[in-house]
Amino acid sequence: VLAEFQTHCKNHFPEIATEPFLLACSGGIDSMVLALLCVQSNFNFSIAHCNFQLRAAESDSDALFVEKFSKKQGINFYSKRCNTVLYAKEHKVSIQVAARRLRYAWFAEIMQENSIKTLVTAHHADDNLETFIINLSRGTGIEGLHGMPVKTARISRPLLAFSRAQIEDYAKAEKLGWREDASNEETKYLRNKIRHDIVPTLKELHPTFLENFKTTQSYLADTSAIVADRINALTTTMFIEEDGLIKIAVTALQELKPLKSYLYLLFKDYGFTKAPDDIFNLLTAMSGKALYSDSHRLVKNRDYLLLERLKSDDNPSAVITKNDSHIKTPLKNISKMKR
Amino acid sequence: VLAEFQTHCKNHFPEIATEPFLLACSGGIDSMVLALLCVQSNFNFSIAHCNFQLRAAESDSDALFVEKFSKKQGINFYSKRCNTVLYAKEHKVSIQVAARRLRYAWFAEIMQENSIKTLVTAHHADDNLETFIINLSRGTGIEGLHGMPVKTARISRPLLAFSRAQIEDYAKAEKLGWREDASNEETKYLRNKIRHDIVPTLKELHPTFLENFKTTQSYLADTSAIVADRINALTTTMFIEEDGLIKIAVTALQELKPLKSYLYLLFKDYGFTKAPDDIFNLLTAMSGKALYSDSHRLVKNRDYLLLERLKSDDNPSAVITKNDSHIKTPLKNISKMKR
Repeated sequence: VLAEFQTHCKNHFPEIATEPFLLACSGGIDSMVLALLCVQSNFNFSIAHCNFQLRAAESDSDALFVEKFSKKQGINFYSKRCNTVLYAKEHKVSIQVAARRLRYAWFAEIMQENSIKTLVTAHHADDNLETFIINLSRGTGIEGLHGMPVKTARISRPLLAFSRAQIEDYAKAEKLGWREDASNEETKYLRNKIRHDIVPTLKELHPTFLENFKTTQSYLADTSAIVADRINALTTTMFIEEDGLIKIAVTALQELKPLKSYLYLLFKDYGFTKAPDDIFNLLTAMSGKALYSDSHRLVKNRDYLLLERLKSDDNPSAVITKNDSHIKTPLKNISKMKR
Repeated sequence: VLAEFQTHCKNHFPEIATEPFLLACSGGIDSMVLALLCVQSNFNFSIAHCNFQLRAAESDSDALFVEKFSKKQGINFYSKRCNTVLYAKEHKVSIQVAARRLRYAWFAEIMQENSIKTLVTAHHADDNLETFIINLSRGTGIEGLHGMPVKTARISRPLLAFSRAQIEDYAKAEKLGWREDASNEETKYLRNKIRHDIVPTLKELHPTFLENFKTTQSYLADTSAIVADRINALTTTMFIEEDGLIKIAVTALQELKPLKSYLYLLFKDYGFTKAPDDIFNLLTAMSGKALYSDSHRLVKNRDYLLLERLKSDDNPSAVITKNDSHIKTPLKNISKMKR
């Protein structure tokens, strides 16, 4: 695995092999194996561990475990204690969403302060397939199916080319210790069921099922990029900015088909993701009717919709959301009815 | 089931409840149940049975069986014997593709001659899920995942709202006879495995799995329509028609990203579906280099690609392909690497 990992990084992740990076490490088997591989490859990196304080002493032990490993290996170590429960309560989001936002906002901070360009995470091949099936079971759109990309502008995932089995074997062979990962509790039952009851049968359907699945996900990622191009092209012509307000002609919107899906895509970056039907209804509503997202207001005004950013005084969470969006969040692939 | 079927048709398929239509009937349980439901609903329809002559006497017995049923019920009956094997050989396509083309070309003929607007097929809810999983196992794109639509301009599928179990129960309750369907031999093993080993576990993952899956497919169908809009918009600006030739600037193509997927989508309607990498390579090829599909030639000429329809003398199959494309073919969802 080590030789394969090194060749893989050399060929596909030159930024990891040559520049300093930040490795996100929970202390679970995946990120510990990744950390070990990076140590053995003499890569130049720091380790960041986020303590979500969700399991009291257990959480502190996780942090201590990763810290000890880092010190022993002489790796720069960052850690942070987050009040995840409080954040979730205050921002009315799930614990999962809170943990993700806190984690990625903090990673972004470290990276900015230390001029680190790349975050490296330990997601592996089975993660993408399991997430695909979980999202499928809940109902999803293409965003929930195309999987985490191997690489974005800021995040690299060198283990996506490796299977869970390879990672487990390597941990055993190297007598590596790890902590049982608590961050996936929400989906642990589902992932186990998928791993043991569904994936083996899927693999029996076709001798190269996993390879074909990767191809499928890359096609879907391309499809998603093409949809984004369509939406950008529409936004350029239809969203007219005037005095800090964006003006959109209702008649132009109404020509789009399938309308509800177009409305969802056109307004999702402004935070209107929860009730796409509301925008559809707004098109035919009385003048003055308004919708609010966490960051924006959308008002019907005669033949137009007017889109306006809320002042950050009104809504302090908007600032955090903005920081958060600097980094594409991998776990956001898991969410009910994500489109 | 009968009452549910009638309400369903009244609400969602007024064209079936009020106008004459053509019912495609193989003699298998699905299409026999559909035929019976239509008889019991006093709908005005004809039955068409295509004899592909793939199983000698068995195929003739299928045809006879459907004919007898039609006569007994006083329904107008069409049948046709096709030399499927010969067609497949001559056009270098699989037996499945040959059967599909022959079938839909002939249905289109009957409909045109008799001014029938709608073809009704017996696909049910489980068909879409099974096809999704089969295509997933082989590697596919969004076209292989979004499922057959309930309704297109020319085809209605009133049984998509019903499960296989409901259809089987109704056949038993009504003591209806049917023929074992041979048209799905190619995927019969896979479908059985999926039906018995995978679908039940998927349903355990989420209490409303099937409903959620329908939602997913409708989102994916919308996504696919939005991609088609993007491709149409690009074609309008980039494909310049001059003297029966279409001229496309290479530089404009090269700006598109993800390029290979864009090339596939821009040229698939001209038959260039089998080797998308060839068009990618053509962009940087020497002037004079040409690619051929069944219906078109694509030539590199300095800074342009020139796209030209082949004369039908050169390639008689082009005519049939054209007829065939009048009706969206449901089974084309199943194909290796379909994007």
